[in-house]
Amino acid sequence: MARRIGNYTIITENKPKIQGFASIVGKKEGDGPLSEYFDAVHDDTTLGQESWEKAESRLQQEAAEEALKKAGVTEKDIQYIFAGDLLNQCISSTFGLQSLNIPFLGQYGACSTMAQTLGLASLFVDSGAAQRCMAVTSSHFCSAERQFRFPLEYGGQRTPTAQWTATASGAAVLACGEKERPYISAVTFGRICDLGIKDVANMGAAMAPAAAQTLTDFLTDTQTCPSDYDVILTGDLGAVGSHLLQELLRRDGVEIAPYHNDCGLMLYDREKQDVHAGGSGCGCSAAVLCSIILKKMVQRKLTNVLFIGTGALMSTTSSQQGENIPGIAHLVCLKS
Amino acid sequence: MARRIGNYTIITENKPKIQGFASIVGKKEGDGPLSEYFDAVHDDTTLGQESWEKAESRLQQEAAEEALKKAGVTEKDIQYIFAGDLLNQCISSTFGLQSLNIPFLGQYGACSTMAQTLGLASLFVDSGAAQRCMAVTSSHFCSAERQFRFPLEYGGQRTPTAQWTATASGAAVLACGEKERPYISAVTFGRICDLGIKDVANMGAAMAPAAAQTLTDFLTDTQTCPSDYDVILTGDLGAVGSHLLQELLRRDGVEIAPYHNDCGLMLYDREKQDVHAGGSGCGCSAAVLCSIILKKMVQRKLTNVLFIGTGALMSTTSSQQGENIPGIAHLVCLKS
Repeated sequence: MARRIGNYTIITENKPKIQGFASIVGKKEGDGPLSEYFDAVHDDTTLGQESWEKAESRLQQEAAEEALKKAGVTEKDIQYIFAGDLLNQCISSTFGLQSLNIPFLGQYGACSTMAQTLGLASLFVDSGAAQRCMAVTSSHFCSAERQFRFPLEYGGQRTPTAQWTATASGAAVLACGEKERPYISAVTFGRICDLGIKDVANMGAAMAPAAAQTLTDFLTDTQTCPSDYDVILTGDLGAVGSHLLQELLRRDGVEIAPYHNDCGLMLYDREKQDVHAGGSGCGCSAAVLCSIILKKMVQRKLTNVLFIGTGALMSTTSSQQGENIPGIAHLVCLKS
Repeated sequence: MARRIGNYTIITENKPKIQGFASIVGKKEGDGPLSEYFDAVHDDTTLGQESWEKAESRLQQEAAEEALKKAGVTEKDIQYIFAGDLLNQCISSTFGLQSLNIPFLGQYGACSTMAQTLGLASLFVDSGAAQRCMAVTSSHFCSAERQFRFPLEYGGQRTPTAQWTATASGAAVLACGEKERPYISAVTFGRICDLGIKDVANMGAAMAPAAAQTLTDFLTDTQTCPSDYDVILTGDLGAVGSHLLQELLRRDGVEIAPYHNDCGLMLYDREKQDVHAGGSGCGCSAAVLCSIILKKMVQRKLTNVLFIGTGALMSTTSSQQGENIPGIAHLVCLKS
């Protein structure tokens, strides 16, 4: 049975392991520095589908199927799938995963969704509520742009603080008691944090305070410090949010700069790829985690990683009505 | 530790109990047959807010606060809140619950969300991952109409199969080991089910097959039959979907008619209130459960209830793109 420590953290007891994982990305992501780590790169970002939304669903389906294959199991071996995405009513997940016929629990944590699904899936297998669960998320630049910002055809200009929604999906299969694999040792689910940011082209600033809060909660609860970890990986604050996170923590006497990286900064080459402040979208952190990070953990080049998914909990309606953009961050501690 | 039986069902071990519950509704719901059971009825369905979306957030906030009060606890006593709603990116939940400062896990199950949040919250307290959790959902006729259908000002006509989105919120506080209270004895999370329905004015038909599938899974797993339960309560199939559910099960030799009721049929007086096929929306099943049903369970007038939340996993985009409307149903078995 899981054990709670401090106010906000759950320590797992049965080493819920990542038995298999996969990442499927689009062309721009394949052109970036992590190219060699992905399971598949689609140069045609329609994936042969009739709409961007259907293309995103297809990304999820491929990621889920590849993760199953790499875990050496089939859909019949999975008891629950925790999945979500950025589209209204989470349709990428519904249409992408329905063919698997696995009990489905739709999640919404904006760009924190990969950490949320991974945390829930790991706690379910840890508690024995399931033998095996899957965590899946996705995003697609073209479906997100037209839903949240402008139709692509409009050719809107982006501000320097804006992030680039990744065309990507990541999936992980969780199970206890299998052979040696990276496992989830602790989970800290976050509280909604709102410092009054309203600029929808600066999501990094909206999410940074939530990341600071959740990381502080975790470090306090576990009585550890940043240097205890190989990487403190946020996803996705981008350049602006990453700077703010480091600054916020520095004011509290916590220095994470030597250990901190951000999925939104890792996915693209910002010098060459014109993504402004970096990558974002549920698929960004999912694909970075389920490629370079977990591969290096399997190789034990990384053995102690904090993965902090960060989400901006807004809609076009809430922003049009003048609401702030509250942030949230969920943390998963991975060991190998 | 929870125990799995059959293919799809989890049996709880520690009697996760509903320590407190509350329902807050709008005028039309207060004019219906369940009037006396609600904790508050707002004749002004703006709740004094500037927009329908903010009014819906306010409904959630009031339901959550009332449930805490009735459970005799404060927000500091709750480790996780599982919440969701129908609005894009679940903004009713975000803005309604952020002031509580409780770790927040956004859920999306369309109108099945109350069963999904209740199931997850109960498993979390059952496993010891939390001492106390909350499950909350809401819907608002006016925010849903303009998001999914037409602006209210347009005065669109509704077809006879259409359901009426309830202006309502329900909230429940879950905890183990407290005094005698209704508890969750089993949970069956559902699989996505798609029989090809495309009519967005006939959600009942889209959801009925999912309800039949989940109920069949549960009855098979537990080796029980409909007559073992006081009420088999779906939410919300309305008149059309309820008829279809009974018919689908009858073909398999399962007769639920003597025990079946539907939250969408209970919330309004269909003869007098012009709601066509009945109520719907996350808040409908939440408010019916968290009023008459749980009150009768506390009084032990009902002791064995199956609560089956049903959701239509669509968005305006998926429907405009010609996709079907897949359904999902999650089941929670309540005993007292």
